[in-house]
Amino acid sequence: MADLRARRDAALGAGAPLFYEQPLHLVRGEGVNLFDPDGRRYVDMYNNVPCVGHANPRVADAMARQQGTLNVHSRYLHEGVVTFAERLAALHGPQIESVILSCSGTEAIEVALRMARFATGKNGIICTNATYHGNSELVGSLTRLPENANANPAVQSIPFPEKYRPLADGLSEAELCDAYIDRLKRAIARLDSSGEGVAAFIVCSILANEGLPDIPAGFMERATAIVHEAGGLVIADEVQAGYARTGSWWGYEVTGFVPDIVVTGKPMGNGLPLAATAASRSLVENFRARTRHFNTFASSPLQAAVGMAVLDEIEGRDLRASVTAVGAALKAGLEQRKGASEAIGDVRGHGLFIGVEIVAPADHAPAVDQAKRIVNRLKDKGFLTSNAGAFSNIVKIRPPLVFSHENAAEFLVAWDETIAELSA
Amino acid sequence: MADLRARRDAALGAGAPLFYEQPLHLVRGEGVNLFDPDGRRYVDMYNNVPCVGHANPRVADAMARQQGTLNVHSRYLHEGVVTFAERLAALHGPQIESVILSCSGTEAIEVALRMARFATGKNGIICTNATYHGNSELVGSLTRLPENANANPAVQSIPFPEKYRPLADGLSEAELCDAYIDRLKRAIARLDSSGEGVAAFIVCSILANEGLPDIPAGFMERATAIVHEAGGLVIADEVQAGYARTGSWWGYEVTGFVPDIVVTGKPMGNGLPLAATAASRSLVENFRARTRHFNTFASSPLQAAVGMAVLDEIEGRDLRASVTAVGAALKAGLEQRKGASEAIGDVRGHGLFIGVEIVAPADHAPAVDQAKRIVNRLKDKGFLTSNAGAFSNIVKIRPPLVFSHENAAEFLVAWDETIAELSA
Repeated sequence: MADLRARRDAALGAGAPLFYEQPLHLVRGEGVNLFDPDGRRYVDMYNNVPCVGHANPRVADAMARQQGTLNVHSRYLHEGVVTFAERLAALHGPQIESVILSCSGTEAIEVALRMARFATGKNGIICTNATYHGNSELVGSLTRLPENANANPAVQSIPFPEKYRPLADGLSEAELCDAYIDRLKRAIARLDSSGEGVAAFIVCSILANEGLPDIPAGFMERATAIVHEAGGLVIADEVQAGYARTGSWWGYEVTGFVPDIVVTGKPMGNGLPLAATAASRSLVENFRARTRHFNTFASSPLQAAVGMAVLDEIEGRDLRASVTAVGAALKAGLEQRKGASEAIGDVRGHGLFIGVEIVAPADHAPAVDQAKRIVNRLKDKGFLTSNAGAFSNIVKIRPPLVFSHENAAEFLVAWDETIAELSA
Repeated sequence: MADLRARRDAALGAGAPLFYEQPLHLVRGEGVNLFDPDGRRYVDMYNNVPCVGHANPRVADAMARQQGTLNVHSRYLHEGVVTFAERLAALHGPQIESVILSCSGTEAIEVALRMARFATGKNGIICTNATYHGNSELVGSLTRLPENANANPAVQSIPFPEKYRPLADGLSEAELCDAYIDRLKRAIARLDSSGEGVAAFIVCSILANEGLPDIPAGFMERATAIVHEAGGLVIADEVQAGYARTGSWWGYEVTGFVPDIVVTGKPMGNGLPLAATAASRSLVENFRARTRHFNTFASSPLQAAVGMAVLDEIEGRDLRASVTAVGAALKAGLEQRKGASEAIGDVRGHGLFIGVEIVAPADHAPAVDQAKRIVNRLKDKGFLTSNAGAFSNIVKIRPPLVFSHENAAEFLVAWDETIAELSA
């Protein structure tokens, strides 16, 4: 393994990210399980891309069948591509009619941001201050952007709305919501006064990278209305939040708003590069007219066939119901443990996406090192998580959707052992 | 088919690009052949993505086997990913040591441009004035950018070097080369005087989108030296030029220069989204240190397994030799026809990438409508090409690498019929 790591450092360049103090060497997966070369099993509680399970046979079959039949770019007519796009659009409300397929979340967010700029004739983008939406120059400019940063007047951030570390102490939930809304209004005012104007407010529907905070009631709906009043559009980043992750199809159903543009990605192809930007037909057609956008690998028969197989699995196995039930049980189990351990400041999330906030018992300050110790210890015990969130102190639990009650039960045993060992 | 087109307009938005006056509905492919729902065969002379043939069984098998074993992101150790990256780097000279994998040419060009900016500490990018390198905001800003455009002082273009429509009349080839080099020096001077400086000169190694012009001898080598003197790096866009397309592995071998950064894409995965940015280890590691770059779908076991299968096919079937031989025969056949038809202004290209410039007989002006008529007529006869180039008047011939002498012979028959019919 030392040799493989040295070879990797040379071939990919040292600094290519790796998880865990002792990186994991993987050779095989099946369902929620991953295996190293010695056959040791790890329960995958991190990966949302293989949403219908590692090595899912229906997906592998669909992939092989389509690649062995036809896989070509989208400037020909192909029934499968059209059917898949129709099915995707139909998973949303009536405001979503058409889709532009891409090969990564980054590409799909680029399309969304540019679509909003073309549609509004304005340039300004508002994001939250602890987000990540992708790695291109444009999309990367939104990454963890401080409020009132001056480098690019067209991009403004707001404090992400949350109840655990609120913007101010002693406020009622309604007052707290007002306080966050006020910061959004200030960002809009900055964009208007600099002449950029508001093209879009982009937000992960469940604030995944921020650490899945509980959002003051009404914030998302009010924010949407205010952005619309300012002439802007609302982009829901559903790359992590969507595709049954919360037990609902979309995160925006859980946090209560109706976006103009929806971006999906990671789970769509169970590992095949596949992402989408969905909006009204007029928004999509305006974008197409302005750009003559084309993406060689996107909207291919392969993307369509694999995308259909993933939706078939989610629907055929009723994974939304399973995610809701298993996620609720797992969350309840962790909430129970919160009372017994001062290291757990908060347990939150939706469906099979749960964040456990690890804090210093004395002052509830983010305990990043302790979160990392928990993640590494859990990995040694055969359970794969990571640390994430605005302060990197959240244990992030986001398994494939096929994660079961049995998996949740065995994880809670490992969790208890881990906390006990680290407290000893 | 009318119904499918209407459904496509709704689901993807009208304006999603389609080839041909009467778009082609495809259901199946095999080798160089594509088939419509009636079983009608079309010889594919356009697609470089399915480089080792449509429905190639070795690729489909590799895809199914890997997807059915393990396909996960790159923050774990995986032998296949490392081996593929090593193999890719070894296809270049010693200056190329490490690679960053992506899911599209656009993503890989973004990495290359940002890598050059980080390495040089400068911001300016020089491209040619009739190019296309991708569709993101940054990369799209290079598309068909006029010389001396002022919108973005950090991006400057130069007239693409060519011998068919030279920059000035009456010059020797050496003088013509000097004239183009002078325009490059002026672009460098503009970037230096505006304070941007030269980060990179990016160029398709065979000027594919420009229309595959014959380049004045020595231009690419001299341009590379001058960019280096100015403190910049040279990025070879090998998305179209590379992977045995010219009969050599890389276009830069054919046009005679040694790039610092090489971007590959389209043919790498025979349809699986896969692209790469390759450079010295120090350039790659500097980029990684500055960005902590991560791409969810890239550097996956699936990309690696499929990428290896494509390289195995190219090497195992000695496709470089076949491309060289078949390409030379096809080009010779077209050159022969140039004498007999005043509509053909020029025949050029490398290996299995040939451009036939269609012109007005009177003054050799670009004859775009005639080029389109030829492309549509050829399609009706069962041969798929497109029109392209700086003036859109080039019939672009770029079949899968498995295109045979027999395919070339049957195409030339259809070509002769087409020209005769359009002249009648």
